[in-house]
Amino acid sequence: MTPPVPDPAVGTGQAGAYSSGASPHVSPRHPRLDPLADRYAARTHGMKSSEIRALFSVVSRPEVVSLAGGMPAVTALPLDAVGSMIGELVSGMGAQTLQYGSGQGDPRLRERICDVMALEGITDARPSEVVVTVGSQQGLDLVTRVFVDPGDVILAEAPSYVGALGVFQAAQAQVRHVAMDDDGLIPEALEQALLECRARGERVKFLYTVPNFHNPAGITLSEPRRERVIAIAEQYDLLVIEDNPYGLLGFNHEPMRALRARNEERVIYLGSFSKTFSPGLRVGWVLAPLAVREKLVLATEAQVLCPPSLTQYAVARYLDTQPWREQIKVFTELYRERRDATLESLTALMPPGTTWTRPDGGFYVWLKLPHGLDAKLMQPRAVAAHVAYVPGIGFYADGQGQEYMRLSYCYPEPDRIREGVRRLARVIEAELDLHSTFDAVDTGTFRAVSTPPPPVIGPANADEDSHP
Amino acid sequence: MTPPVPDPAVGTGQAGAYSSGASPHVSPRHPRLDPLADRYAARTHGMKSSEIRALFSVVSRPEVVSLAGGMPAVTALPLDAVGSMIGELVSGMGAQTLQYGSGQGDPRLRERICDVMALEGITDARPSEVVVTVGSQQGLDLVTRVFVDPGDVILAEAPSYVGALGVFQAAQAQVRHVAMDDDGLIPEALEQALLECRARGERVKFLYTVPNFHNPAGITLSEPRRERVIAIAEQYDLLVIEDNPYGLLGFNHEPMRALRARNEERVIYLGSFSKTFSPGLRVGWVLAPLAVREKLVLATEAQVLCPPSLTQYAVARYLDTQPWREQIKVFTELYRERRDATLESLTALMPPGTTWTRPDGGFYVWLKLPHGLDAKLMQPRAVAAHVAYVPGIGFYADGQGQEYMRLSYCYPEPDRIREGVRRLARVIEAELDLHSTFDAVDTGTFRAVSTPPPPVIGPANADEDSHP
Repeated sequence: MTPPVPDPAVGTGQAGAYSSGASPHVSPRHPRLDPLADRYAARTHGMKSSEIRALFSVVSRPEVVSLAGGMPAVTALPLDAVGSMIGELVSGMGAQTLQYGSGQGDPRLRERICDVMALEGITDARPSEVVVTVGSQQGLDLVTRVFVDPGDVILAEAPSYVGALGVFQAAQAQVRHVAMDDDGLIPEALEQALLECRARGERVKFLYTVPNFHNPAGITLSEPRRERVIAIAEQYDLLVIEDNPYGLLGFNHEPMRALRARNEERVIYLGSFSKTFSPGLRVGWVLAPLAVREKLVLATEAQVLCPPSLTQYAVARYLDTQPWREQIKVFTELYRERRDATLESLTALMPPGTTWTRPDGGFYVWLKLPHGLDAKLMQPRAVAAHVAYVPGIGFYADGQGQEYMRLSYCYPEPDRIREGVRRLARVIEAELDLHSTFDAVDTGTFRAVSTPPPPVIGPANADEDSHP
Repeated sequence: MTPPVPDPAVGTGQAGAYSSGASPHVSPRHPRLDPLADRYAARTHGMKSSEIRALFSVVSRPEVVSLAGGMPAVTALPLDAVGSMIGELVSGMGAQTLQYGSGQGDPRLRERICDVMALEGITDARPSEVVVTVGSQQGLDLVTRVFVDPGDVILAEAPSYVGALGVFQAAQAQVRHVAMDDDGLIPEALEQALLECRARGERVKFLYTVPNFHNPAGITLSEPRRERVIAIAEQYDLLVIEDNPYGLLGFNHEPMRALRARNEERVIYLGSFSKTFSPGLRVGWVLAPLAVREKLVLATEAQVLCPPSLTQYAVARYLDTQPWREQIKVFTELYRERRDATLESLTALMPPGTTWTRPDGGFYVWLKLPHGLDAKLMQPRAVAAHVAYVPGIGFYADGQGQEYMRLSYCYPEPDRIREGVRRLARVIEAELDLHSTFDAVDTGTFRAVSTPPPPVIGPANADEDSHP
């Protein structure tokens, strides 16, 4: 693990400094900005704001077209019916819905969750193997708490889900990215990574994968690749964490058989109702073998005592009484239309040299900028032009991804999406213009990126005697 | 830290074992009970079920009088009004209530939380310093994550809240208990503990305290003691975590001024709506200085992304539109009546040698058994007699507490409480009988507790020539 970078907000960055009991020395000229600076835990030193959440205040502005946040189209739900349903859960069952519940989660909901998983080929799951969580985010956090010691290695796709990277970083793990292509994770690259880690004496705790309509890449792991990944997991005794919030949101085909459907011993499955029902309820789950389930329940009891009762009953009641599969079709038709608007306008408007993935479901397009451009450095220009995206570096633990960005099409109306892509195209064109003018210049800071800087050639410097 | 105890469920208990890539050796005669046994994180080795949650299945049985769980009397709420209110939040505001929200929590709710805290003397809190959490349990978990490294020392009252001990244990901290008396934490004992830790070279990260209607002791920290604790915290540069779910549930007097009202720099305050409104919504909060708030928000984003939106809006709307302070009076009158039933029946029925605290609010009575009895060992007899309590050892990190138990009076009706105390008294009497018969015998296992065992004298052994 790299030593903590000194951060002014945490004093010397040394978590170990222990004041001997007397008041800490405070020089009158340098009052402590943060009196608690010397006592934060080591795991906080690498904590940084997620690229998405840093945008939160920007994207809330109505004049900004946000292609950043993966916010589901919840207003497509039958709000009156769902509202009545939830109201009745309180007035008629308040003794349960407003009370503490079990740490593992409501038994009826866990049964319903097994029914939902059967749609993706997992037919041998038992309710006792399910732990309800506060969104699948908490599920991933619990799994990480149960398995990962500081310094452990986690393999993840390149790129990977930013929320997962936040969990792994909080656990002080080392993430090694494994290449993907249009069919998903590349099995040979996975095997290569495992051999390299072994050669370095590194302990790989698990592979984290998002096999369906990947966040952020939009890609789905193909059928032959699924079999290969399971075979590699068996051969190398690798634990696999399968994170699947989008599996039922395909536009063209039935859901593919989950990795967990092919191996129940070494695949831990994370599911969520955030995209199939509602993210504001924060209801997800982990499916794990009983020995793991035991530890997950202990960990979640320490973390939250139990998940909220009202939201669990709401999901179970929704699955029992509302046409939830038809609703998923309503959602996917809406998202298909938005995906089409995105791809059509990208094709029509993006400058040459720009490439992007073509998702068959889910929420995201992964766009690669023309050579030399940097999505993070370009971001101030985009915000000024009132379009928001998530810079690609947010989806890598190792600093890669500068030439990429994630576009979410789930939330804005199609015309708004087209306007957003139009604005983005202009920003990219302007950026290309900047680059062709200033060549190897860091356009974020307007300082040369190489030493010594090459001579700057162009109209702005016509007075210099630099013509060849 | 003590070395992990080998646990058959985790193999050798060595978290570091790394399989070299080939399948682990599986002897045909000793199949691996848990194929993942060699890869759990070190922090899981000490994880054990909480004494309360272990009782969950027992206490749900209708024939058992449970004086165990601290379940608020939620049916005393105006369920129809609350149900309508929540239903309208979905049907009328579904775009917000069913959607992702901010990691720090809804701004309007954070404003309302500041109003609630003002009732306990905290008048300088700003909404920006509030982080909404999934119950105050998650708040404590986040604070612990932000401050505590493995091996750090945490000071806690003797006894302390079992849920907090679970958090501290998951963080691999060492807990040192500090004595209480009828006025709460003893300041001299706190000072003594700080000096002892310093002498041992130990790093005390914070004091964790529940100053009002303490769980499990029922005791409230007196006014002079509050000033002394703050003075000691300032003198010794001690951080204080003030956990206050019961402060508004006093029977006889207005809420006392919180510790946080007396010092804003070194007191982090945890609050909850679980007892003043509903535990099934899981809405609590942390009030912390901004530098800490920053880290708490990063930590909660990694853990859950954001707290549920619907439950937050429900609490804010409840505070805005319902007579919530009158409701608290309804609750406290109910709890007062139940406290009275408890204390009256304890006084009438308990055998000599039994003592207990007399709470002036909140949910709990802390009972000390007659000399020589052990609440955990006695528990099977209590379960057989259909009465449940929480054994005192659950509230200590160091094995103390065998002679204590916690009784919760918040949930059962007064007559049920009286019946429960009646059954408990009979169990204690039978236990005393057992002890007087068998003298120094471990009545849980019927084996002698000292070596060599003293001669057993009594009617059962009349045939032995043991008369003096």
